[in-house]
Amino acid sequence: MSRIIISVYVDNQSGVLMRICSLFSRRGFNIDTLSVGETEDPNYSRMTITMNGDEYERLQVINQLNKLHNVKKVEILEKDASARRELALIKVGVNNDNRQDIISAVTIFRCNIIDYTPEAVVVEVTGEASKIDAFIEVMRPFGIKEVARTGLAALERGNTCMLEK
Amino acid sequence: MSRIIISVYVDNQSGVLMRICSLFSRRGFNIDTLSVGETEDPNYSRMTITMNGDEYERLQVINQLNKLHNVKKVEILEKDASARRELALIKVGVNNDNRQDIISAVTIFRCNIIDYTPEAVVVEVTGEASKIDAFIEVMRPFGIKEVARTGLAALERGNTCMLEK
Repeated sequence: MSRIIISVYVDNQSGVLMRICSLFSRRGFNIDTLSVGETEDPNYSRMTITMNGDEYERLQVINQLNKLHNVKKVEILEKDASARRELALIKVGVNNDNRQDIISAVTIFRCNIIDYTPEAVVVEVTGEASKIDAFIEVMRPFGIKEVARTGLAALERGNTCMLEK
Repeated sequence: MSRIIISVYVDNQSGVLMRICSLFSRRGFNIDTLSVGETEDPNYSRMTITMNGDEYERLQVINQLNKLHNVKKVEILEKDASARRELALIKVGVNNDNRQDIISAVTIFRCNIIDYTPEAVVVEVTGEASKIDAFIEVMRPFGIKEVARTGLAALERGNTCMLEK
């Protein structure tokens, strides 16, 4: 079992997301993270889905996605050949005792504080999933109030274009 | 019609995402962006969904989501009272004529180049959706090859916690 990162190019239409989620659910593939956004062409959206699976499930998910209506292109991104990033917003309780420690950690992890009140801060963290996990562990003893993570966005490295392959 | 940002706290189980997508599809609500990630508690996930709608659809979507199994809490985030961020990876073709212009724009927008080859770069941009849109328009004449956007992540500003309301 390993982490599989799937990039799916789809028509920007209602119902497409549901058909894809339904496929994963029906086949028993458990989606770990999912993000959807417009592409350079407003007619298309790109979804990045991560799941855990073996070689068989890897082949299955590609085959099944390729059969779906409104799916233009499907690609598995290999870890060594892709640029991957995730974003997280983390709200942490602050007080006079822990404020400086939190601010130091934010600087060390190269994060940004995007909301600041005397009782809480919202920190924006960007990086590979492991960096975000590490920052959450550093913040946990201070008291995490809320977390919103986007799920992974990923592109193949180098001068390639998924649609032109 | 205005942009509605919905934060949904759900059980981290397979099938939940499909039920939510299915609700949106059945009711004819068109999802603009969707991101799903783990929270500070591995038993729960938080989804951030954006859609366009009027006051009636705003009420409907909250009512309907609250009825779903595995949905713990639903909240609409108001523009003035929330911290919102999105991440995008943008691959742009580079050559000797445009390289310095691209690098300057990356600096001005405070982005990062996370993959660099003689023919293409992958740029990581973080910010409000409007900043990402603006950067994409600046890159378009240089030749955008691929874009992966995560969709919005958002938290209410200040010392609040959605689950404790």
